Amino acid sequence: MKSKEMINFTVGPVQSSEAVRSIGAEQVPYFRTQEFSQLMLENESLIKKFAKATDDSRVAFITGSGSAGMETAIMNTLTSKDKALVINGGSFGARFVELLDLHEIPYSEIKLEPGKSLKKEHLTPYEGQGYTTFLVNKHETSTGVHYDMQLISEFCKRNNLFLIVDCISTFLADPFNMAELAADVMITGSQKALACPPGIAVMCLSPNAISRIESTKCKCQYLDLKLALKNAERGQTPWTPAVSILRQINVRLKEIDNNGGVEAEIERTKNLADYFRNKIKELPFEIYSESLSNAVTPLHPTTASAYDIFLKIKDEYDMWICPNGGNMKDTVFRVGHIGALTTNDYDKLISAFNDLKNKGFI
Amino acid sequence: MKSKEMINFTVGPVQSSEAVRSIGAEQVPYFRTQEFSQLMLENESLIKKFAKATDDSRVAFITGSGSAGMETAIMNTLTSKDKALVINGGSFGARFVELLDLHEIPYSEIKLEPGKSLKKEHLTPYEGQGYTTFLVNKHETSTGVHYDMQLISEFCKRNNLFLIVDCISTFLADPFNMAELAADVMITGSQKALACPPGIAVMCLSPNAISRIESTKCKCQYLDLKLALKNAERGQTPWTPAVSILRQINVRLKEIDNNGGVEAEIERTKNLADYFRNKIKELPFEIYSESLSNAVTPLHPTTASAYDIFLKIKDEYDMWICPNGGNMKDTVFRVGHIGALTTNDYDKLISAFNDLKNKGFI
Repeated sequence: MKSKEMINFTVGPVQSSEAVRSIGAEQVPYFRTQEFSQLMLENESLIKKFAKATDDSRVAFITGSGSAGMETAIMNTLTSKDKALVINGGSFGARFVELLDLHEIPYSEIKLEPGKSLKKEHLTPYEGQGYTTFLVNKHETSTGVHYDMQLISEFCKRNNLFLIVDCISTFLADPFNMAELAADVMITGSQKALACPPGIAVMCLSPNAISRIESTKCKCQYLDLKLALKNAERGQTPWTPAVSILRQINVRLKEIDNNGGVEAEIERTKNLADYFRNKIKELPFEIYSESLSNAVTPLHPTTASAYDIFLKIKDEYDMWICPNGGNMKDTVFRVGHIGALTTNDYDKLISAFNDLKNKGFI
Repeated sequence: MKSKEMINFTVGPVQSSEAVRSIGAEQVPYFRTQEFSQLMLENESLIKKFAKATDDSRVAFITGSGSAGMETAIMNTLTSKDKALVINGGSFGARFVELLDLHEIPYSEIKLEPGKSLKKEHLTPYEGQGYTTFLVNKHETSTGVHYDMQLISEFCKRNNLFLIVDCISTFLADPFNMAELAADVMITGSQKALACPPGIAVMCLSPNAISRIESTKCKCQYLDLKLALKNAERGQTPWTPAVSILRQINVRLKEIDNNGGVEAEIERTKNLADYFRNKIKELPFEIYSESLSNAVTPLHPTTASAYDIFLKIKDEYDMWICPNGGNMKDTVFRVGHIGALTTNDYDKLISAFNDLKNKGFI
C-alpha cells in the first residue's frame, strides 16, 4: 500500500500533521495513570471549547467509528416512549433510520432527495405534533449537503425537542455553536477534521443529555455512557481505549488552539474549499449539493463514470479522491478539504483532472 | 507523558517493534480499496493459522477493546434459550457474568478463589445438566491464572457445549489449538501479545459459531457480526475501522510468521517469563497464581503496598509495572512478558527492585 506517496483527498481517514504522526511512532504509554487522566481532561475541555458547549456539558470518547457514536447516542438517550423526527437525505440519514428501527424508537422520517437542502416547508407539517426528539446529520457526508442548523434549532426550541446532531464530518470544518443551537448530543470522529487515525468517536453531551443518560438503561455495556461518564470524571475510560489516537487527538486539539482556535481552522478549510471550487469551473463536473459544507465538494462528472475516475486518479496519479457507494457509485465522487492539505496539493489534483480531460478520458 | 523513555512491563498496551511503530508514523491510507482488502484477508489468514483454527473458520476485526469482543461474542451467539456455564475467577470472569446478566442469558457460575486454578471436581457437578454453552477467560489476566483448557475442552465435548474462549492476554503467549479444543469463539486484542496499539478486538469464529451468528438477532448494529462477516468476505468492515492499527497488526503477524511462527513467539515469551521468575527469588514477593501463563507474573509483595511499588517504579525508575484494581490494589502487582521486551529490560527492573530493597522500601 503506497500510503507514503499518495495524496489523500477523501473524507476520512484524512492526512495528519507531522506532530500527530510522530506520536504514532512512539511507544503507547500505560494509561491507568494520573498523566493520562490529565491528557483526557484536557481533551474534554478543548472539545467543549471548540463545540461551544456550555460549561456543564461533558464529553465521552468511545473507541469505535462515528457510526458507533450515532448508535451510542440512540441507545443511551432514547427509549420506546420517544417520538423521533429524523432527516434522511442520504446514506448517513438512512443509518439513523435503521438504528431507530433496530432500537424500536418510534419515528417519522423527512426524506430528502439526494443533494437537496432542508427547507422550512419540510418541517411545517411536524410542528406541534408531539415529537420529543430530532436527529440530523448536520453534514450528510454521502452527498455533501450541509443542513441549515438555525432552521432546525428554532424548530426544536419551539417544539421542545431533544436534539442529536451527527457532526462527524463537519466539526471543525463549518461553524457550530452547541449552546446557541441548544443541541444536546454532538458526535464527531477522530479521522475527519480532527485529522487523526480512525478509531475514536467523540460525543459532547448537554446537561439535558446527561440527565437522559442517567435515566436510560443502555442494553450494551461497551457503549454504556453511564459507565463512560463515571470513568471520565477522573479522566479515564471503562475499557482500554485507543490510547495512541487519544494522544494524537490531544496534540491536534492543542495545535488548533495555538493556531487561532476553531474559527481559524474553519477559515483555513473554507479557503481550501474555495480554492478548489474556483479552479474546477472549466472541468466537466457539476457540483452535486444545493448547500455545501467546507469539508467536501461532491461532484457529478458529466462525461465519465465517477468510479472510473477514482480508480484512474488512484492508480495513475497516486491520489485518492473519495468514491461514492450504492447507486451513486458511477455518478458522484467527492473531493475533501479536511486534514493536512495545501493549495499545492489541489494544484496537483487539478492538473491530473486536466490531464484526463486532454486525454479524452473525461 | 514520558512515553519514549519508559520501559513498559504492563499487560497492555505493551511495547511494539520498530516496524510496527514506523507504520504509526505513516499517513493512514484510504481503505475502501483492493489494496486494503488484500491486507485484511492476509490478517484473517494469519490469525487462523496462529489460532490453529479449521480452514472453514472466519475472523472478524472489531474496532473496540477486548471487552467489546467479549460482549460481541455474547450478543451474537447466545440467546435466552441458552444455559451457560461460566468460570469466574477474577475481574474478567466477573465481566462475563455481568454481560450474561445484562443480555439475559441464563447461567451458572463457577466461582474460584483469586489465584486458584480450575480442577476436575469444580466441573463434575455440572456434567449432564443441560448446559448449552461454556465461557472462560483462558488467562484470567487480573490474577494471572491460566486455566487448563484440556480439562475444559473435554468437558465441553462430552456435554456438547458451545465454547467461548477469551484469549485476550494469552493468544501468542501460551499454546492454543482452537480446532483440537473444539473452541467456537476465540477473542484477543491488538494491545496484548499482538503488541500493537489498543483499539482492535480480534475474533476467530468456528463454523458452529458462524451458524449461531446467522440465526441470532444482534441488538447492536455496531457489534453485529453478521454485518462484519458479510463485509469481511471482500476484506472490508461495515464501519470505518482503526485502519492504522489493522496495518500494524499486518506487519506484526508477518513478523511472527517470518520468525518461526506462533511456536517461536510462545517460546520467546516463555523464556522471558522464566528469566524474570528465576531472578526474583531473593525478593520479598510471592507468586500469586497457582497456574501461570507465560504472559504475566502476578506478585504479592510481602513487605509493602503493591500500588506504592507501582508508583515508585513509575516515578523514580521510569518503568511501568501493572497495578491491580479493586481489593487487590495494595496486595498484588503484575509484571508482563508480552510485547517487545528483552532480558536487558528485566535486568533493569530487577535492579530497581533490589534498589528498593536496599533502601528498605520493600
